[in-house]
Amino acid sequence: MLRTYVDMNLVSGKQPHAWDLGEFYLIDRIRALVPDIDLTDDCAQIELPYEGTLLFTTDAAIRGVHFPEDSKYIADGGFRALAGAVSDINASAGKPLAALLALVIPPELTLSEFDRFLSGLLEYSRHSEVPLVGGNISRGDRFGATISVIGSSNKVVTRSGARPDDLVVLSGSIGGSEIGRMIISGEASDADIKSLDSEIIGTLLYRHLRPLPPLGLGEKLAAIGATSMVDISDGLIADVEHIAEASGVNIHIELGKLPLYPGVTEIAQRHRIEPAILAAESGEEFELIATMSLKDAEELEKLQMPMTVIGRVRSGNGFVDVTLNGEPIPPGFSEGWKHF
Amino acid sequence: MLRTYVDMNLVSGKQPHAWDLGEFYLIDRIRALVPDIDLTDDCAQIELPYEGTLLFTTDAAIRGVHFPEDSKYIADGGFRALAGAVSDINASAGKPLAALLALVIPPELTLSEFDRFLSGLLEYSRHSEVPLVGGNISRGDRFGATISVIGSSNKVVTRSGARPDDLVVLSGSIGGSEIGRMIISGEASDADIKSLDSEIIGTLLYRHLRPLPPLGLGEKLAAIGATSMVDISDGLIADVEHIAEASGVNIHIELGKLPLYPGVTEIAQRHRIEPAILAAESGEEFELIATMSLKDAEELEKLQMPMTVIGRVRSGNGFVDVTLNGEPIPPGFSEGWKHF
Repeated sequence: MLRTYVDMNLVSGKQPHAWDLGEFYLIDRIRALVPDIDLTDDCAQIELPYEGTLLFTTDAAIRGVHFPEDSKYIADGGFRALAGAVSDINASAGKPLAALLALVIPPELTLSEFDRFLSGLLEYSRHSEVPLVGGNISRGDRFGATISVIGSSNKVVTRSGARPDDLVVLSGSIGGSEIGRMIISGEASDADIKSLDSEIIGTLLYRHLRPLPPLGLGEKLAAIGATSMVDISDGLIADVEHIAEASGVNIHIELGKLPLYPGVTEIAQRHRIEPAILAAESGEEFELIATMSLKDAEELEKLQMPMTVIGRVRSGNGFVDVTLNGEPIPPGFSEGWKHF
Repeated sequence: MLRTYVDMNLVSGKQPHAWDLGEFYLIDRIRALVPDIDLTDDCAQIELPYEGTLLFTTDAAIRGVHFPEDSKYIADGGFRALAGAVSDINASAGKPLAALLALVIPPELTLSEFDRFLSGLLEYSRHSEVPLVGGNISRGDRFGATISVIGSSNKVVTRSGARPDDLVVLSGSIGGSEIGRMIISGEASDADIKSLDSEIIGTLLYRHLRPLPPLGLGEKLAAIGATSMVDISDGLIADVEHIAEASGVNIHIELGKLPLYPGVTEIAQRHRIEPAILAAESGEEFELIATMSLKDAEELEKLQMPMTVIGRVRSGNGFVDVTLNGEPIPPGFSEGWKHF
């Protein structure tokens, strides 16, 4: 009967609303898309590798807060929702094992939007090999998802183990997420981006909409001796501050060392922003920041991943001092990432 | 500086809004209330008992949907949010181990409401000995929490193992949650409840606002041989249907056997509703329904818990037939529980 209702709407050209079809219809729809999901029972069951520590994290992805309001980005919202939660496991030096999805569905969400959000989420699920094993659907006022992920680790790395003299290392290159956000929001105009190669514009948009945390790297950094670790979610400086505070050390960051994502320099300069400062404040990059001894850092090359030394830990009590090509940058220049 | 801001507001009699104080202030506030919580790191770490199966569940509790809008019930909302998620572990025959809290905070939520929601949640955390080990805070349009719980089980029971000839057993007594909802919503008037003892009215309200799933009972029922199990969240008949469908059997339920919560008969009769039908449709009771062989059911007495045989499994393909004192009740009388 429900299927007939859908067909009637499609024939008439009306977009059916997801919630009008009922919770059980939507559950069946998820089942059809995710063959392995267990939405029958009260809990998902997971057979664990019987060693190591269990990691457990939860992350919200709310439309208009964590991903753009515009319907055309809704599949990206699903992709990003799972990627963001999985990144927390990576940053704790764990292997992600399984995810749960709690969806909140407002009356105006169309079935097409529901489907596209799920398809984006499943795309990241396949990419990361993190199965969606269960979930929950509720009605609400604003579309959003809370994703919970479990993982396991044989050598957990927290934010609190940085020691004086450790080097600070960063994976990949940064700033692209913020530039992508500026392009989507219109803060970066067509005139701003016209000098860029269209392929670079595409990667900037994807960097923001479909971030790809460097999965597996957290475990590798732990294995070579990382003393503390965090993923960039609030922005590099804000996240380095989390390490400094949790570890009870000071940390010096030299912005001149930051590897910048392609296109960041051009757009930042057109906006008269120092590119390295923009990159240091760019949130949701999902690259890893780790601290480790000089000796252990010699092993970084073996990873064959782009890793850059960007600073050094000093004794202290929770402060981060920042220089740009040796010149001090006043504290407080960075306020972390602003959501939509 | 944040603390000064709070004090200024308290002095002036204004209620500060939680979100205005900033995410990090609220995180500190949770830390002060929950000494063991790890809100420093990206993930919570849990050392597991290295045996059995891991259970993993997530449940949303949204203001105005899963608990009443009125501010005076907000502590109850926190209590119920964790109780509802923990109940899923109980219904899978597991022991709950730890919980994560993802909060969505709208601009109008006051700091007092934030505190009271947390205090209710922590009250259930202490009662159930399920520690809150981590979480996440986002802004949004409507206050709500998504709670994820992990547990472990040496003998998981699902909804899909019911076999023909099994008995259907129910823990405790039911109907109280729906009557409590009717009193709170005003559907049951002062005139309706004036014949009731004030202590009974109190237990009816608590039954709805602060449900207490029979923790530990799921594991005990599994140990004596339960073949399938579910907690009452949608309503007894709707949840028995879940077992029938998942197990590929028919199930007969005799409503005359249902143990009714004190006060249910009086209020239902004043509303000209058959009390057993009201009880069979009452959601969020969190009592357990299990199936087991006649022989295993002989062990139920040893549990020294109120358990009642309410029906029987038959061969079939997913249908539930319902009688009241032997008279058939037409299918479709039950539509599950209506949220606020």
